[in-house]
Amino acid sequence: MLKYHDELNAVLRAIADPTRRAVVERLAKSPAVVSDLAAPFSMALPSLMQHLRVLEDAGLVTSQKHGRVRTVSLRTGALDVLHLWLGEQRTPQKIMPTGLAPT
Amino acid sequence: MLKYHDELNAVLRAIADPTRRAVVERLAKSPAVVSDLAAPFSMALPSLMQHLRVLEDAGLVTSQKHGRVRTVSLRTGALDVLHLWLGEQRTPQKIMPTGLAPT
Repeated sequence: MLKYHDELNAVLRAIADPTRRAVVERLAKSPAVVSDLAAPFSMALPSLMQHLRVLEDAGLVTSQKHGRVRTVSLRTGALDVLHLWLGEQRTPQKIMPTGLAPT
Repeated sequence: MLKYHDELNAVLRAIADPTRRAVVERLAKSPAVVSDLAAPFSMALPSLMQHLRVLEDAGLVTSQKHGRVRTVSLRTGALDVLHLWLGEQRTPQKIMPTGLAPT
């Protein structure tokens, strides 16, 4: 288990990439086999596998192999760390009076 | 106004960097002058200004100059696009029965 900030870093770096984010969006609906994941991206399988590796290292997805078929799932609570961070940023914003700004 | 996916991309790329994320966390509490923002990072001012530029381009922060003092604020609703995206990923996950996995 990574520490909070490391985990948050890994998750944000993983989903900052549009392809990896699209994979997460797809897996949020249901698990999928690797070949089905690759299809909409017109991407070579090795490239997709690299993206999946980043998502797996970030703790976002997990996969299981049955025979020659690998099925990828979004981990339960995969995005919890991001929910947590966003929740922390909800502190109401104070307005600093211009007259009090340091000179 | 950037489109949703472009805005989401820009926000995620901006906060995937730990320094920029720390600036956002600081500004979520209250606006701050640039010199005060720089202090905790033991970072040269030009480097901080570059980070602020990225945050500003992503629509996360805004700044106002009064005399020689620039005050930076988190934009209202700055992180809304991320809340929205996270909300979309809440679709309950279906469990694929192993026996139904394609062969």
